[in-house]
Amino acid sequence: MALHIDTLGYGAAFLTTISFIPQALKVWREDNTSAISLGMYSLFVMGILLWLVYGAYIANYPITVANGITLCLAVSILYKKLQHVRAGRKL
Amino acid sequence: MALHIDTLGYGAAFLTTISFIPQALKVWREDNTSAISLGMYSLFVMGILLWLVYGAYIANYPITVANGITLCLAVSILYKKLQHVRAGRKL
Repeated sequence: MALHIDTLGYGAAFLTTISFIPQALKVWREDNTSAISLGMYSLFVMGILLWLVYGAYIANYPITVANGITLCLAVSILYKKLQHVRAGRKL
Repeated sequence: MALHIDTLGYGAAFLTTISFIPQALKVWREDNTSAISLGMYSLFVMGILLWLVYGAYIANYPITVANGITLCLAVSILYKKLQHVRAGRKL
């Protein structure tokens, strides 16, 4: 039974991590972040950073790797949003 | 020392959970999901559902509560995006 539980956890981590790939691709391809919340990605990046430190500290490989990938994707979205904010585009 | 680690985990869960509040508010207030990826929120909602089942199964209160809140917020964003897709607005 334990196998199923861990598989569930890995499945959940996998889905929530890869889910940011289509969003990052869409933002960069269409150069459009008008509906993207600066507040969300600022808070989210901070939270993911904490998860990364937490995972590394407890030496939990899945948490560390999943959040490392998510961090790169979320930062790329936040970066594009900040570019638009600096260019004076609608928040 | 253990206290700090758990606090880190709770802090990470808190930030990544509340980060979806400004995004949900923005999407509903501005009725704009043009930059929101349907792919992201479809995968993300599935992943969060798995986290919820995983957290409930291992009787982990923070994982269950945090993902329960995130699920409501993410579903509200996905719902608004699907509304727009059905109305034929740009994907």
